This record gives sequence, C-alpha cells and structure tokens, in this order.
Amino acid sequence: MSKPCIICVAITGSVPTQADNPAVPVTLSEQIESTHAAFEAGASIAHCHVRDDDGKPTADPDRYAALQEGIKAHCPDMIVQLSTGGRSGSGRERGGMLPLKPDMASLTVGSNNFPTRVYENSPDLVDWLAAEMIKYKIKPEIEAFDLSHIFHAALMQKRGQLAGTPYVQFVMGVKNAMPADRAVFDFYRATVARLFGDDAPWCAAGVGPQQIVVNEWAISSGGHART
Amino acid sequence: MSKPCIICVAITGSVPTQADNPAVPVTLSEQIESTHAAFEAGASIAHCHVRDDDGKPTADPDRYAALQEGIKAHCPDMIVQLSTGGRSGSGRERGGMLPLKPDMASLTVGSNNFPTRVYENSPDLVDWLAAEMIKYKIKPEIEAFDLSHIFHAALMQKRGQLAGTPYVQFVMGVKNAMPADRAVFDFYRATVARLFGDDAPWCAAGVGPQQIVVNEWAISSGGHART
Ligand SMILES: [Zn+2]
Ligand SMILES: [Zn+2]
Ligand SMILES: [Zn+2]
Ligand SMILES: [Zn+2]
Repeated sequence: MSKPCIICVAITGSVPTQADNPAVPVTLSEQIESTHAAFEAGASIAHCHVRDDDGKPTADPDRYAALQEGIKAHCPDMIVQLSTGGRSGSGRERGGMLPLKPDMASLTVGSNNFPTRVYENSPDLVDWLAAEMIKYKIKPEIEAFDLSHIFHAALMQKRGQLAGTPYVQFVMGVKNAMPADRAVFDFYRATVARLFGDDAPWCAAGVGPQQIVVNEWAISSGGHART
Repeated sequence: MSKPCIICVAITGSVPTQADNPAVPVTLSEQIESTHAAFEAGASIAHCHVRDDDGKPTADPDRYAALQEGIKAHCPDMIVQLSTGGRSGSGRERGGMLPLKPDMASLTVGSNNFPTRVYENSPDLVDWLAAEMIKYKIKPEIEAFDLSHIFHAALMQKRGQLAGTPYVQFVMGVKNAMPADRAVFDFYRATVARLFGDDAPWCAAGVGPQQIVVNEWAISSGGHART
C-alpha cells in the first residue's frame, strides 16, 4: 500500500545568497557536503545550480562537471539533476552542461512571468533542450510554472520529444506566475492523471514560505516533494 | 431567466491576410463596413487590430484613431475595443493608442508561448498598460492565455490596478499556449466565479478550427463569445 516518496533537494537554487541564509551552500565543497548530508537524511535527487566565484548563478559546464563528479564520489546513489533554468544563462548556454549526461535535468516547456521579468523559453529553445536530453539519455523533470505547460509536455511526449512518461513538477508560489492554490494543485494532479495515466509520478515545489505548505499537499496526496 | 450574450467580433485580427481569406477586412473602409455589418447582425463589441499600407499589423495610433472615428460614425452603439496585443508592436508602443480613450482595450497580464516565439508581457509593461487604462477610464478585457493569468488579474484588482470586476477572456487553441480543452474551460469558469464572484462575466475565444467549439461551450455555459 505504501509508496515511497522521492525527496528532491534543491541544495542551492539560483536566487538565495549566504547573506540571506548562511547555510546556503555556494562553493563546490559546500554543495557536495550539503548534498551528502541531504542524502543521509533521505533525499534521493539533488536539484543542482552552480555559482561562479562571485556567488552569481552560472551555467558553466566546468562547474557542473566538478559538482557532478564530487556528488558521485561522496554519495554515488544520489540522482543528479542539473538545472537548465533561465536564471543562470540565456539561450542554448542554458543547456551547455547536458553533454555531461547527468541522470536528470530540469526542462521548462513554456514561458511565464517571473518576479521582475519574462521567463523566456521559446519554442525553439524548448525543442533543442529536449532533443539534447534525448541524445544524452537524460531524464527531464518538466517544470510546470503554469497549467498549459502540462499540456505542452503531453504534446511533446506524443511527438517523441520526451522519452517515457513525463515527470512533472508543479512549481507554485513564484511571484507573477502560479500562486500556491489548493484547487489548482488538485487540478494539476487530475490533469497529470488524465494525460499520463493514474500511476504517472509527479512532484511539487513551493517557493519561500509556500515550500512547507506545498510539501504537505504533495506528500499527503501521494506525490513527490522538492525541498 | 435568460441573460443576453455579448458577441465580440474580432473583425481583422493580427494574423490572417486576404490571401488566407478574401473576406478579411484590412483597409479602414473594409474594417468600418465589416464592423457595421457585424453590429447589424448582433455583435456589440468590436475587437480591433489595424494594419499598415502593406497589410502588416501595426499599433499606429493614427490608424486606430481613424478606425475608432469611423466605427463611432457608422454604428455609434458599437463598443470599441482596441488591441494592445504583442503582434503589432513591442513595449509601450503597444499602448500608444490608449490616449484615444476607446471604450475597451485588451490587456494580457502574463507571458506565454506563441506558435513560433515568446509572447512577452513583462511585469513592468503589464503594470504600465493597466495604469494607462485607469488613467483614460478604459475597461480592460483580460486575455487569459493560461490559468495563472486569471490569478494575476485578481491580484491586480486587489492592488487597485484594475477598476471594477475584471472581464476575463479565455483564449484557447493558440499553438504552444493553452489548447481548447473542456475540463480546463470548466476550471477557468470555476476560477473566475471563485475569485470574482458567481455573477462575474467572462468570455471565451477559440482560435482557428477551435472557434466554433469554444463559442458553443461559452454560450451554453452562460458566458460571452468572441467570434
Ligand atoms: Zn532550480
Ligand atoms: Zn561527504
Ligand atoms: Zn486580438
Ligand atoms: Zn456602414
């Protein structure tokens, strides 16, 4: 009856700094130790962003290579998921680390607003990132910032642009995108079940103060959770 | 018991050409006569785009002024709604006609993908367009290309950026945005009722082959329709 819950730990993210919270791991060694600690505590996916020497988000493939290598050395069973999100670079730069063949990578399949700007994921860029993930046998995590993104994942699956059943994450609580709303959360779940089957796995992430709220919704509804 | 249905006629749109369909009104006089005919046939809102001398979409305020004047002369009771959509210009250019004080203007409050590109509606631009509409006492029609746009309209209303109850249009069937999906349509309606009250008006538009389908859903559910 009981189904294991996959805990995905977003060790660093692209926004917080050590000025916000001294516990945010920023250097490679901090990131690797933080991932190791999360693994010991029960997490099984590490959602990774890297920073440059100034602590700013970057999509630098060398940084990602060093992080992936370090995580695999310290906790070989941790699933490594690299971010192709838009806060660390623009255009195809965002997928420059995919030849590293991580276990997973994040993939946003539509555009939406962020707190101060447009989160641009043009159809061409989405198609290219998905093709790279097919080429390098990387499992995408579909980041659904809005409802149409779930439908677009279904269309991409039908076209053969996504291998297997899409693993969709509901992202809630980002300012100017989808708020953390329980009725929407339930409709998201129903939509995933309708488009991908009752057994299709999904996960959910709440941002900032919504994190614990959305974690509780996800875990109590049989989903997986991003911390 | 019976409630009138508002028919909004999109006389020209920004995409079709006379090569696609010779009946598309493109010149000012064609647009005015087409609006007049639609008015006689029962439409009460004209959703207007204008074209330049080459038939390309433009946001030229002089063109819009001439169109508005012509419509008001031929059918003074027609409600004129000018488009601030992104196919005719970029940035604040898109709102350059708002000082004409049309009865209504379209307002998209979030970003999404279009068939070949990102439909960019940055938070700053959205806030500016809404402020212009307040300033010139123009009733916005909120173009909801995705679910979060309805929530964003609610937030803007709460902040005083939208006067009165938002009039939301569900736009369905645009490639790479929200498909025409009946369950989503019903969830959109329920969301409008929850956020704006059971009596809040709404309308729906389907694109291309979805037009007649979405018109039927809207009219049979007590909504208003864009043709
Ligand atoms: Zn991330
Ligand atoms: Zn270690
Ligand atoms: Zn339009
Ligand atoms: Zn006439």
